[in-house]
Amino acid sequence: MVGAGHTRFGALAEGPRALLRQAVDAAVTSVDRGFDRSSIGEGFLGTLGFSGWQLGNSSAILAEEARIPRVPVSRVENACASAGFALRAAIRAIESGAQDVVLVAGLEKMTDAPSTRRRYWLGVSGDTEWERLAGLTFAGVYGLMASVYLAQHHVLPEALAEVAAKNHAHGALNPNAQFQKPVTREQVLASPFVADPLRLLDCCPVTDGAAALLLAGEEKAHAFTDTPVYVAGDGAGSDSLALQDRGSLTSLAATRRAADEAFRRSALDRSAIDFLEVHDCFTIAELLALEDLGYAPPGGAAALELSGATRLGGSRPVNPDGGLKAKGHPIGATGASQAYEAFVQLRGSAGARQVRGAERALTHNVGGSGASATVTVFTV
Amino acid sequence: MVGAGHTRFGALAEGPRALLRQAVDAAVTSVDRGFDRSSIGEGFLGTLGFSGWQLGNSSAILAEEARIPRVPVSRVENACASAGFALRAAIRAIESGAQDVVLVAGLEKMTDAPSTRRRYWLGVSGDTEWERLAGLTFAGVYGLMASVYLAQHHVLPEALAEVAAKNHAHGALNPNAQFQKPVTREQVLASPFVADPLRLLDCCPVTDGAAALLLAGEEKAHAFTDTPVYVAGDGAGSDSLALQDRGSLTSLAATRRAADEAFRRSALDRSAIDFLEVHDCFTIAELLALEDLGYAPPGGAAALELSGATRLGGSRPVNPDGGLKAKGHPIGATGASQAYEAFVQLRGSAGARQVRGAERALTHNVGGSGASATVTVFTV
Repeated sequence: MVGAGHTRFGALAEGPRALLRQAVDAAVTSVDRGFDRSSIGEGFLGTLGFSGWQLGNSSAILAEEARIPRVPVSRVENACASAGFALRAAIRAIESGAQDVVLVAGLEKMTDAPSTRRRYWLGVSGDTEWERLAGLTFAGVYGLMASVYLAQHHVLPEALAEVAAKNHAHGALNPNAQFQKPVTREQVLASPFVADPLRLLDCCPVTDGAAALLLAGEEKAHAFTDTPVYVAGDGAGSDSLALQDRGSLTSLAATRRAADEAFRRSALDRSAIDFLEVHDCFTIAELLALEDLGYAPPGGAAALELSGATRLGGSRPVNPDGGLKAKGHPIGATGASQAYEAFVQLRGSAGARQVRGAERALTHNVGGSGASATVTVFTV
Repeated sequence: MVGAGHTRFGALAEGPRALLRQAVDAAVTSVDRGFDRSSIGEGFLGTLGFSGWQLGNSSAILAEEARIPRVPVSRVENACASAGFALRAAIRAIESGAQDVVLVAGLEKMTDAPSTRRRYWLGVSGDTEWERLAGLTFAGVYGLMASVYLAQHHVLPEALAEVAAKNHAHGALNPNAQFQKPVTREQVLASPFVADPLRLLDCCPVTDGAAALLLAGEEKAHAFTDTPVYVAGDGAGSDSLALQDRGSLTSLAATRRAADEAFRRSALDRSAIDFLEVHDCFTIAELLALEDLGYAPPGGAAALELSGATRLGGSRPVNPDGGLKAKGHPIGATGASQAYEAFVQLRGSAGARQVRGAERALTHNVGGSGASATVTVFTV
């Protein structure tokens, strides 16, 4: 990675084209030297197309707004993991030798959707037949997971509240975050239920935003910077779309497979990772992620969070940018935003939220309720 | 390519899951020896998701119906070129060494959409702001191109009618084709206008169908068959989404760029290609394709078609399977269907529509009205 750009996340005035342009321009500007966008050989856009503003063929808009006319572009859509899988495709384009420089962008404009249509658009990434049309929302899906988790492992809702409190504390240090206000565990536990046991402050918000990444082959990268961020290894996995077809409600098989592949490719141990960016669309998702990624035994993530180890300054910070919970979750943008965080942290330019001495990072992006997942390991 | 499968194309009783399963099972069965689907390391699904039966996260359904649990899958969506770009991603996955065996599938179930919603779903791949919401349909877009083409090059509608007559003649030899009935030029010219100068028989139909491809690295491929079909080179390109932003209405810059890249990578001359599968969503599109691919000068494709050279038995047959026009055009499936045709033709198993002695084929897949395009060159 030789460049990365990020818009503010939140309820923004800008339309989707402007967001895309801002993120790409910021990525281009971030390259240390000698970069010309005409060197970009291919582009990948991760987006769900929330609200249907451009439901099909939207990758052409990436070429337009990035001002790379004629360059091949593809839309990759795996729900909330769209940009994670777009990044995976980009890595293959570089590794294969087909391209020297590749652009990855993630985008979602969610707040334009009329409120009467938001439930539809939030539901389209779940199983249509057995979940969406039966009335199960995404908060409902994760609420089911959280119920089983708390009961199975005798965990109290404090652990969920700690995830929210931690991520809000981190988000307060991130100028791009949608929520930059700390909340206490007590405030989380006093917020209204959305899908028992998940409360309002357990849920990520509805967000507009975009992020963009510039990848280059190793030789080319050194022409652009002395401090590239390396993709040490990536992995991905899938699972049944509908919850009812899965073996477990408290573990995502897609994440487990993705992590195994990423660590195998990178030849790094889990212990070598300095901080994690995990997919915390709901607080319960962060607990499951830590366990499925191999950082806690089943049921053990709760104690890990409550110990403070996952906070900035702890032994292995999780979601220093505030995570989906506080930074916001513009569906198709999230995977690129996580990689952006790896880029700025590993180059020591993350400002107030800098993880001291960070040299290796892991990002984890989940599609829907776990039908797909990517894990990527980055190093300096 | 070591295997390829294809459903019937048409207005089918089967739902999307069943179509996907049929195509993948047929691809697996088509492999000559020793193939086990557990060797598939990654999957790519090309689909627009017409009718919204599963608008987001549909790649998980490929893993389910292919019975490859946990295997990473991505949806690639570039409108009508979705499967062409899915194939491109698959080629990179193999070339990079990341995967030995990859599955590509294309799918669309169009006839389930209520008739009142079909115009919406057909329009979502055009520019939303300046085309769809202004009332311009896809037939309208190509009608504009055809009008300019006929006027600019002093070509009569007979040339368009010949494309339809030829492709219907070819489709009559293809047991998977939606239309297996020949039509005469006179019948085409007597059919009602849809978007002047395009008539009903100038337009491809609304179609259900799926196709699947199995790709393997060269070494692995020889374990499965003595007669693999090789990807000699692939290319892709893009253009502005909206017609009004393009330099020309009678040439697709995306196709030109894609062809240049594919021929450069394959190190083959255009003259080496024995037959072409081009994206004839409307008859005019086939004329533009022949010119943009370099087989006729601007305006020259009309005479080429009228000469009979593009018919089976001619010097360079075009769309021996009937093309989108007669075989049908299930949006996300078309790019995979074209590669399927290359597979069966180059292995000499195309039956009544066999191109005698075919050793090299080119496939050409266009997204929407030309916002994106892929070109792939296959050889024995």
